[in-house]
Order: sequence, then structure tokens, then C-alpha cells
Amino acid sequence: MALIVQKYGGTSVGDLDCIRNVAQRVVSSAAVGNQVAVVVSAMAGETDQLVSWAREIGGEQPDPREVDMLVSTGEQKTIALLALAIRQLGHSARSFTGGQMGIRTDTAHTRARIASVDAERLQAVLDRGTVAVLAGFQGIDDEGNITTLGRGGSDTSAVAVAAALGADICEIYTDVEGVYTSDPRVVPRARKLDRISYDEMIEMASLGAKVLQIRSVRFAMRHGVPLHVRSSFIPDEGTWVVPEEGVMEGLFVSGVTYNRDEAKIRLRGVKDHPGIAARIFAPLSEAEIVVDMIIQNLSQDGTTDITFTVARDDYRRALAIVEAECAAIGAAGVDGDQSIAKVSIVGLGMKDHAGVASRMFQVLAEHGVNIQLISTSEIKVSVVIEESHTESAVRALHAAFLEAGADEPRSEA
Amino acid sequence: MALIVQKYGGTSVGDLDCIRNVAQRVVSSAAVGNQVAVVVSAMAGETDQLVSWAREIGGEQPDPREVDMLVSTGEQKTIALLALAIRQLGHSARSFTGGQMGIRTDTAHTRARIASVDAERLQAVLDRGTVAVLAGFQGIDDEGNITTLGRGGSDTSAVAVAAALGADICEIYTDVEGVYTSDPRVVPRARKLDRISYDEMIEMASLGAKVLQIRSVRFAMRHGVPLHVRSSFIPDEGTWVVPEEGVMEGLFVSGVTYNRDEAKIRLRGVKDHPGIAARIFAPLSEAEIVVDMIIQNLSQDGTTDITFTVARDDYRRALAIVEAECAAIGAAGVDGDQSIAKVSIVGLGMKDHAGVASRMFQVLAEHGVNIQLISTSEIKVSVVIEESHTESAVRALHAAFLEAGADEPRSEA
Repeated sequence: MALIVQKYGGTSVGDLDCIRNVAQRVVSSAAVGNQVAVVVSAMAGETDQLVSWAREIGGEQPDPREVDMLVSTGEQKTIALLALAIRQLGHSARSFTGGQMGIRTDTAHTRARIASVDAERLQAVLDRGTVAVLAGFQGIDDEGNITTLGRGGSDTSAVAVAAALGADICEIYTDVEGVYTSDPRVVPRARKLDRISYDEMIEMASLGAKVLQIRSVRFAMRHGVPLHVRSSFIPDEGTWVVPEEGVMEGLFVSGVTYNRDEAKIRLRGVKDHPGIAARIFAPLSEAEIVVDMIIQNLSQDGTTDITFTVARDDYRRALAIVEAECAAIGAAGVDGDQSIAKVSIVGLGMKDHAGVASRMFQVLAEHGVNIQLISTSEIKVSVVIEESHTESAVRALHAAFLEAGADEPRSEA
Repeated sequence: MALIVQKYGGTSVGDLDCIRNVAQRVVSSAAVGNQVAVVVSAMAGETDQLVSWAREIGGEQPDPREVDMLVSTGEQKTIALLALAIRQLGHSARSFTGGQMGIRTDTAHTRARIASVDAERLQAVLDRGTVAVLAGFQGIDDEGNITTLGRGGSDTSAVAVAAALGADICEIYTDVEGVYTSDPRVVPRARKLDRISYDEMIEMASLGAKVLQIRSVRFAMRHGVPLHVRSSFIPDEGTWVVPEEGVMEGLFVSGVTYNRDEAKIRLRGVKDHPGIAARIFAPLSEAEIVVDMIIQNLSQDGTTDITFTVARDDYRRALAIVEAECAAIGAAGVDGDQSIAKVSIVGLGMKDHAGVASRMFQVLAEHGVNIQLISTSEIKVSVVIEESHTESAVRALHAAFLEAGADEPRSEA
């Protein structure tokens, strides 16, 4: 007997039949004595439909408070329907909006952050043996205005509720069977991981793996909530996302990820003196453009090249901003490229083993892939390459690091 | 400059274009300096759709709390879309759910009654010159559960808000041009009334006129809120519903209504002694069946016939209940008839004039309409007739009392 928070995404509750299936799963978990709280998203397509209406009637930038008022109805519909479906199976259930379930957020409409969760009311419901059916993605601010957490926010809602309830598990149900060593559509030999650490999951999420929203994993790590990512269609165990010490396998590399949503911008011949970086990046930050990788070459003759990447959606705006600054900072010129991909290897194991990065570069060289930029952290190595090489690079790295016969790390001992 | 509450029903906000039209009307009223609060229903068809989903997934009697959670999303969508449309016209607007606008109700889900309205927050918004866009039909109970007021509840929401704000006018926008002397589909010569008293409007609403929900008129009368029923498509004045002293015309009869939604049940040969009525009507009341007219004939030989009418939807249940009691109370038998109609004339004028009822009976007799039951109040006379005579009876009464050349009342002086 445990307290379990389950989260089902939009495709899992896409129509009334899907909702009935979810109700079955919830009831079978509650029937063996578990306390169950279920967090659900809007039915697939609903949020997009509502956002398109908001644009049609409210212009390209519709008022965010009203957008939240509108789109939050999506989850509200799902919770009522799921609660009805569960009750129809003979189990008690009660639905709660974000406000009713005690999720307080800041006032940043359409991308609010959770400030606190008061789970007292939920706990009382669960203690009576009732299933609590909760609207993901939404909360209220201090004035009672409805806010939403932004895309993928339902994962974060689930983790936040699990943390507030002190849940034993937070199960994230999805249309894939767990977290894979790489994207199975690109790498047919990719395999499901049994366990992965929060740190690795965060790196993999930020590097392109879409199975979990990165904020939710950070939240889970901070509050020590064990996540279980699993399929809503088959009963098999999925992937557990747990603290580092819980990852027994000690995989050298856990995954190979890719991301084709970035673009790079290069400033050539920048005078290498203090304050230059601020001159370039402050206006980007003001424009709310997030810069990912930043690489500065070694200075030659007192000038340097600065290259950085941004989301491809922000590329045109970022290029215009940098071009406007170019003369003022005395740079020789600006160029950019949208046809890039970021390919990364992620793994706790590389902390303790030398030579992972160089082996990665060697594998890419053997496959004729030219490396444009490199960025590393303790548990990942990312390279930017020509976009057309994405698949072959990912497959080669997966074969080298994650398939039978892959190189064993050279031991330092 | 006035404080105006406007209410638009489902057909007035049926799609995005309709919502834009409503936004235009709202803004033109606000632009001349009025403070405007707008109450809206769900887009036409939305509530029915949601209720049918609730039945499909939750069975014939879906849990009412979850039904309210579900259907209340309908109005929430409309308020957000209308607020966006108003803002797009350059006027500030802010939407409020039932809970946010301070409507507290009892906990009777799907048919809740308003307990109180705290309009402080709305007043502050209006004082800033912002249009308040309000979800009709919904409120919250003391525990923050979402409740709905039942069909037509948006009228009641509008009147309640108007009362709480001390509004100068509550405008009810609808797809007809006002309150008519009779149903124009049946009586081509029916004409729009300029003014009608609350009392007459309540009688007309309860007798079949569907333009206003009866609860909302009672609420308006109790709080002295002047109602203006008017078309959402044309700018002309509609019908004012006001206190009796404000009705200057002093029409002898204001309207002829009909209602085909009732059925009658007769107990024959009931022993005429105390307690019999209670034996018959208590079990109906327990079954939440509302009894409308009750007529007991003069006793003959110590027995009597008792006849009453119920909503046609309740006919089968009511008949079964009465049949079960029949033997116990020693009645000779029970029969019933669903093919009836109730036709009524309503008018403040008849208070002070004798002979209205007899003139009504005479007109019906001249048209070969047999009267089965009669019920009167100070300002109305209702008769139950064979359903197939409905149209001819209504037309004949309209001609006799409301058209040029109609009989003048015989003065008592």
C-alpha cells in the first residue's frame, strides 16, 4: 500500500474511450489499497484549438491572463470526465482544479512557476479512500486568477503534488514505454533504460529527449520524488528516475540525444577586452532570447570569434539584435547558420573516466562528421554538427557507446 | 452615464463572429461613459454537448458535482473569448468565473441557489473603467466547489450581480425583440409590450413564456432591479420589466400564454375526509415531483374527484405513485391524460375588473373549446384544454383581449 501520484498526458485522455482506459488503470491501482491521486492534461488537440481561437479573436499576442482563463478549461473538462468514469466503475472519485488542489503560482500568465502547494484538502480526500483527480498545468495566483505553467506543465503539477503529499511514487504515463538510450525512430537498436539518475535525465531532457519536461525532473530531484516513466498502454515497468545512488547499473553512457531546434550565430573579429560579452548578451537577454552554448575562441592578435546558439525560432530576432550591436563593439562581421544539430552523449559514468570526449570525437571523425562547436559538463558532451549528419552521428555514437561490443572505458586504475 | 449589467445568451455568443458582435455592443455602451458588466452563457450547443458526454461516460445520472465541474467550462470559455474580443477593440476588459466574481451558492449541484454576491472586486474593476466579463450560470459553495444554477441560470446571475452592484439597468439580450403579448409563432398579431410589471412577467414566465427565467424575475422584483429585455441583433428598445407603478399603460390583459409540457392525473371517488390530500401529495413531494394545478370537485355523497397537473416528464412516475396509493386511500380509480395544454391570460388590469374569467370562458365556448380545469390568481386565469385546441384557443383569446376592437372591460363603476 502506497500513496501514488499518476500523471496522464493528452494522448492518454484523447477521447472518452481513452479516459475509460485511464479510469481502469487508476481503479486497479486503488483497488489493491493504494491511495491514488491522478493528474491529467487536456484532451489531445484541445489546448491547440483553444490557443488558435485566442489568436483568432485576440490577435497575435492575446492577453495572457485571458489565454489562461481559456485554456485552463481543457484540463477542467478532463478531470470531470475522468472522475465520472472512475465513479462509473464503482470507486469514489473527486475532481479538483489547480486552485482547488492548492497550487499557488506567481502571476506570470502562460508560464507561471509554482510557489507553493497546500495539499491538506487532497490528503483528507485520499484518507477517505477517494481517488483525487487533479487538473495539471494550472494553478491560481494570490488574487485567485487562473494561471498556467506552460507547455508540459502537467508533469510539473504531478511532481509538485507528489512532493507536497510525500508520495511514494510519481508515475508519468506516456505514449512511449520509458526513457530510451536514444530516439528509437533514429536508432532502431535504442533500448529502454531501467533506471536513470535525475542529473542524467535533466541533461537528456535539455538535450532533446522529450519524454519528460525538464522542470518536472528538477522539481523531483529537489524534493526527492521517485519518478516512474511508463506506458499508458502496456502494464510493463518503464524507467525509474531516481537519485544517483539508486542507479546501480553504472552505465558508462546512458544516452545519445539530438536537438535540431537550434541555430548558431558567430561574431567575427571581436576585440578581446572586458565588457564585450555583456555588450552582446545583455540585449539578447532583454529580448528574452535564451542563449544555449557560448564558445569563445582563443584570442589571436587581440581579436576573437564568439559563437553561440539560440532556439531556431529566435534566430532571426537574435541575428538582428547582434547585427545592430556589431558596429558598436567593433566586430568584423556577423554570420549565422540554421542548418545545425546538437548531438550529445550523457552519462554519470563519464565523471570518473577519462577519454570519453576524445573517443566521441574519434567516432564522429571516422564517420566523416565535422564538429563545429563543443560544450561539456560533468556528465555530458555536446557537439554542434551540420544538420544533415544528425542521424548518422547519433547512430554511430549509440553503436560505439551503448551497443553490444561497444568500447569499454579505459580504466584509470 | 450609468452602471449597466448586460446579459447575452448562448445564441448571442454562438461563434467567434457572434462574440465579436457582442464585443462591439459592449464597447459602444462603455464608450459613452457607462460602467459595463457583461454576463454571458456558454456558446450555443456547448452545454448540451458537455451534458451528453457526462451521460455517456458517467451513466444516466452522472454525479452532479462532476457535471458542474464539466459544464462550467462552457461559460469560462466564453468569458475569456469575449474579454479578448473587447480588448482587441481597444477597450480594457477582464473576465471572471462565478467564484472570482463573488457568487456564493448553496451546495445543490446542477440547481444551486445564490446565497450571496460579494461585488467588491467587480466594483473596483468597473471603477477603473474596465469592462467586467462574467460567467453566468455558475458560482462556488462555501468549500470552493463549482456549482451551477440550472438551466437559464445566467439570467439569474445577471440580476444578482446587478442587485449587488446597485446597477441602474440589467439588460437581457436575447434572440427576440422583447416580451410579446403572445407567442408570435402561434399568434401572428402578437405585439411587443413596451412595459410589463414583475408580477405579470412572473406569471407569464411560469405559464409558458420562455423569454426570461422566472427565478431571475423574482430576484429582480425582490431587489428592485429594472430589467430591459431586448434583441442582441437590432438596436431598438425592447420590453422593460419594472415595478407595478411603472407600468403606465394599464393594459387590461398583457398576454396570452400556453404550455404543452404538462399532464393531468385524476383520482376518482376519493373519500372526502381530512388527511386525504396529504396521503396523495406527500409521496409526490418526496419524489421531487412538482404539482402545478390542484382542483377538487365539490363533494357528492361523501366522495370527490381530485385532479392535478404535473410536468409531462414526470407523468409516468407520478401516475405510478398515485396508483400505488389508490387502494390505501379507498379511491375508486385513477386515470390520466398527457394530451392537454394550459392556456392562460395574464394582466394586472384584471385585479380591478370583474368578469374577465367569464369573458374568457365565453370566448372559448364560442370557439368550441371545452374547459377541463380552471385555476385563477389575482392577475391570471388559466384553463386546461385538449392539446389539439391550443393554437385556436390562444388566437381567439388574443383577438378578444389584445387586438384592435377587443372588448373593453366592463367597468365596475
